[in-house]
Amino acid sequence: MKTRSGGPERYVVGVDYGTLSGRAIVVRVSDGAELGTAVHEYEHGVMDEVLTAAPPAAGRVRLGPDWALQAPQDYVEVLRTAVPAAVAAAGVDPADVIGIGTDFTACTMVPTLADGTPLSELPEFAARPHAYVKLWKHHAAQPHADRINALARDRDEPWMARYGGLISSEWEFAKGLQLLEEDPEVYSRMEHWVEAADWIVWQLTDRYVRNACTAGYKGIYQNGSYPGREFLAALHPEFAGFADDKVAHEIGQLGDVAGSLSARAAAWTGLPEGIAVAVGNVDAHVTAPAAQAVEPGQLVAIMGTSTCHVMSHDRLVEVPGMCGVVDGGIVPGLYGYEAGQSGVGDIFAWYVHNQVPGRLHDEAAAAGRSIHQHLTELAYAEPVGSHGLVALDWHSGNRSVLVDHELSGVIVGQTLATRAEQGYRALLEATAFGTRTIVETFAAAGVPVTEFIVAGGLLRNPQLMQTYADVLRLPISTIASEQGPALGSAIHAAVAAGAYPDIRAAAAAMGAVDRAVYLPNEADAAAYDELYAEYLTLHDYFGRGANGAMKRLRARRRAASETADRPENVAGPVERIDDTRMVHQ
Amino acid sequence: MKTRSGGPERYVVGVDYGTLSGRAIVVRVSDGAELGTAVHEYEHGVMDEVLTAAPPAAGRVRLGPDWALQAPQDYVEVLRTAVPAAVAAAGVDPADVIGIGTDFTACTMVPTLADGTPLSELPEFAARPHAYVKLWKHHAAQPHADRINALARDRDEPWMARYGGLISSEWEFAKGLQLLEEDPEVYSRMEHWVEAADWIVWQLTDRYVRNACTAGYKGIYQNGSYPGREFLAALHPEFAGFADDKVAHEIGQLGDVAGSLSARAAAWTGLPEGIAVAVGNVDAHVTAPAAQAVEPGQLVAIMGTSTCHVMSHDRLVEVPGMCGVVDGGIVPGLYGYEAGQSGVGDIFAWYVHNQVPGRLHDEAAAAGRSIHQHLTELAYAEPVGSHGLVALDWHSGNRSVLVDHELSGVIVGQTLATRAEQGYRALLEATAFGTRTIVETFAAAGVPVTEFIVAGGLLRNPQLMQTYADVLRLPISTIASEQGPALGSAIHAAVAAGAYPDIRAAAAAMGAVDRAVYLPNEADAAAYDELYAEYLTLHDYFGRGANGAMKRLRARRRAASETADRPENVAGPVERIDDTRMVHQ
Repeated sequence: MKTRSGGPERYVVGVDYGTLSGRAIVVRVSDGAELGTAVHEYEHGVMDEVLTAAPPAAGRVRLGPDWALQAPQDYVEVLRTAVPAAVAAAGVDPADVIGIGTDFTACTMVPTLADGTPLSELPEFAARPHAYVKLWKHHAAQPHADRINALARDRDEPWMARYGGLISSEWEFAKGLQLLEEDPEVYSRMEHWVEAADWIVWQLTDRYVRNACTAGYKGIYQNGSYPGREFLAALHPEFAGFADDKVAHEIGQLGDVAGSLSARAAAWTGLPEGIAVAVGNVDAHVTAPAAQAVEPGQLVAIMGTSTCHVMSHDRLVEVPGMCGVVDGGIVPGLYGYEAGQSGVGDIFAWYVHNQVPGRLHDEAAAAGRSIHQHLTELAYAEPVGSHGLVALDWHSGNRSVLVDHELSGVIVGQTLATRAEQGYRALLEATAFGTRTIVETFAAAGVPVTEFIVAGGLLRNPQLMQTYADVLRLPISTIASEQGPALGSAIHAAVAAGAYPDIRAAAAAMGAVDRAVYLPNEADAAAYDELYAEYLTLHDYFGRGANGAMKRLRARRRAASETADRPENVAGPVERIDDTRMVHQ
Repeated sequence: MKTRSGGPERYVVGVDYGTLSGRAIVVRVSDGAELGTAVHEYEHGVMDEVLTAAPPAAGRVRLGPDWALQAPQDYVEVLRTAVPAAVAAAGVDPADVIGIGTDFTACTMVPTLADGTPLSELPEFAARPHAYVKLWKHHAAQPHADRINALARDRDEPWMARYGGLISSEWEFAKGLQLLEEDPEVYSRMEHWVEAADWIVWQLTDRYVRNACTAGYKGIYQNGSYPGREFLAALHPEFAGFADDKVAHEIGQLGDVAGSLSARAAAWTGLPEGIAVAVGNVDAHVTAPAAQAVEPGQLVAIMGTSTCHVMSHDRLVEVPGMCGVVDGGIVPGLYGYEAGQSGVGDIFAWYVHNQVPGRLHDEAAAAGRSIHQHLTELAYAEPVGSHGLVALDWHSGNRSVLVDHELSGVIVGQTLATRAEQGYRALLEATAFGTRTIVETFAAAGVPVTEFIVAGGLLRNPQLMQTYADVLRLPISTIASEQGPALGSAIHAAVAAGAYPDIRAAAAAMGAVDRAVYLPNEADAAAYDELYAEYLTLHDYFGRGANGAMKRLRARRRAASETADRPENVAGPVERIDDTRMVHQ
């Protein structure tokens, strides 16, 4: 096959590491065509109750509430299986592949030795939960995040405003402080505290480069420095050297080459040794170029189990309650803004699994629809507000604009006539209202959203998309690729390999978006305005301190769980939701 | 068979008219032994969407939101089928039956001609919803109740304090005003607005006697008079004569004889013509003597689809938010207090039907348990507070202490780890918290509850009973009979027939109670205190005006439903819950 310029066609590989699996795609450099793909599910998935990766001799190692771990070798398996499978599916010659790029969930942290060996792979630590990867949704470091925030406010730390005034329990410092205080032995053995996004690049290149994106968003790296020793020492004396000793490392810009593919990684993947490996990236942020969203005001919402909102802007302002603003955090040369909703598709899947009666599942099966489609069809046969409900979408906490993982879900308005599909719709709407709080907060801060582009698995639900258009009163554009992050990683790979001068040019050639697919309906928008007013009232009441019930209920739940964990009182295995594949991108 | 005194054994029949069926029992006069019983389900059940009793030629007559109608002939069928079946099951000679007593749901209203003929039985009105029986849970007269309350407050009407400061939309005047304003033709044809409790006695005796219980609790009959003409005229000019012309009638005291069994009713029932027929009564109130609760401070909670609380006291005080206080309302000679929770078992049944996944139903079936038992076992395997939830039990509105049927349910604290059985337990607990608001309100007003006695189907759930003991910090006694209202009606029949001098004496001989079956557990009571504090905060926030979201959501639901009812927009039949038999007493 030849390009229009007469040279041979060249290809890049993008690998997207999600919560439950990794996906590889093979993409044509000239036009972004996706030629082959393959998925590999992690053997250990998300470990949130029992450390299933521990050796059998360790017995049943239980995890506390809000823990979420992973096993790093599961990530390497994706390279060994999904990459060659995708190349085979594409039918291309591996010799024509010129680069590979990766993206990862974040903040997902691997504690390692100096050579990158994960501590969980040391036999003496194989049964120690703190030696494992802390997945993004590990939320057990909230008390540590609370202390970081209180201290930073007390000391008026200048970097706080870059994170909307709150550091998340999901990020590097809160998770690191938990590690230090709960397992100091593992902590002292740890030589690097590595973003999984960078750890996987290290495995590909044998070289450790920190990507500018997670360093800024998750690592509190601003204006060339991390939080200072004095600040860290005030959190815990042993924490003083955390940034200098375990976190700080060479930074690589997005789209840059991190190194070349090592012989070992070439053997795993079947790709040519020495090809370009792009600096690591985050699944959400790398989706922006795949959706051609590289200009100021173009917000990409990656809607899956959770939603990440990423938007570049040429102005640096401080937006309350966003996740962060990072110079070059999405595209070099612009400020990258990130906001997020920590539960979206996860909440819908939870509801379907736990709050929907069997007859609706049976009806869906009989009609040949997914249960999500069936509930959506039933619920949207009624006008806006027919359900008489309003919900808060905080089942997994609130990332933006409240940045509080101790919050939880609410539903108001149930009567004896309320049907399951109505509750489902109320949750869909609640996530749209949550998005509106973010869009309005950006606008109020002076960095308005001019285009709302949706990527991720949830764009397959047209009623949900129409709800977002109505609630936001904005046209909704949709990414053309079904594999936005993986395509974005491939775009980065093409830039790293020198096929394009920069991400903007690569995005223009290889990304694709369908503009204004859903337009607001004025009558429905007006009706949603009224429900949104109810949402906002509850949002502020439960989320801004007027009623701290959620925190008290969660504290009581933790205390009761500790009582129940005493040996005489161990409950059977608790059913948990892992049914997130339909919404996983 | 002979009594101990040597005379022949004599028997009475009690008939309990519930929401979905009527039950007859045959009881031995000497000791209250229940010898035979039979149930008849109403052919038309509760009509809340379509007027199924209308003639086929009328087509599909739809009902609005919050309507609930019944067909009066369904009540007569109970006399024709369940009474003879119960006598046959008891194996007694009908000639030895000396009296019959009845009790009914209330406030359930029948519009009739002067001779008692229901207007729904006139061919010209057979397709007119307003000609039918308005069941207690017909809640569509809320706007009318609101006007009655506003006007009564403006005019400082003295009777308001007897009803906790609020007249319910369920009662005679609100339902009557709705009838006048929405179907004046039916209203003008109506010659009596009759409690079903009295209408059925009228059918048995050919004589119309208003019972003192519903006249007081539901008919605003206090100190010998009804609300005045001037007050009624201010609501609507045509309503001036409502009390005088359609409501007022001879009053009969509880336990008195209303008349003797007519030849027609003797033919229906197979009982001897001329035997005593007791004055009508309400299912809840008549349960008190069946539980030997005839002294001051003994509160009986009849816990089924809803809960009624009845308690006699020798003091007359004004208790905020109760349903009413009536001289002789439960036992002649004491003031009868009534409070209520409009949804209890109904809420549990709604949840099971609409919010519980099939696998839990399957597990229950495999274990040979009811789904209610299964969810209870699962949920109570955990300590108090493990679910991290608090709910408001207002899915059917709040009768006491807020007296507001526009309120609705709330649940706070759901996370992605929340399981269906945890939500179920939160609802069980919410009803216990609702009961505590009532008990505390009685105590604060100076009529303390000294004994809490449970009757009704829900006493079969021991964990629920224990929760009530813990939440109330009171021992829970339980009625011995499974058919409390029917037994109470039989006790009234025995008094009416002259077998006992009064209800107290008859209750001592024929009623039965198991005292202090459940005792509070201090540790759990302390934990529930904390959850109750959360409940109270939400109770006051949503129920006392700080956030009127529930009323706005309901108004929007009504408006949306009206839009949807336009012919081009009619939805398919909506699934509604009628699965209330397990909790129906």
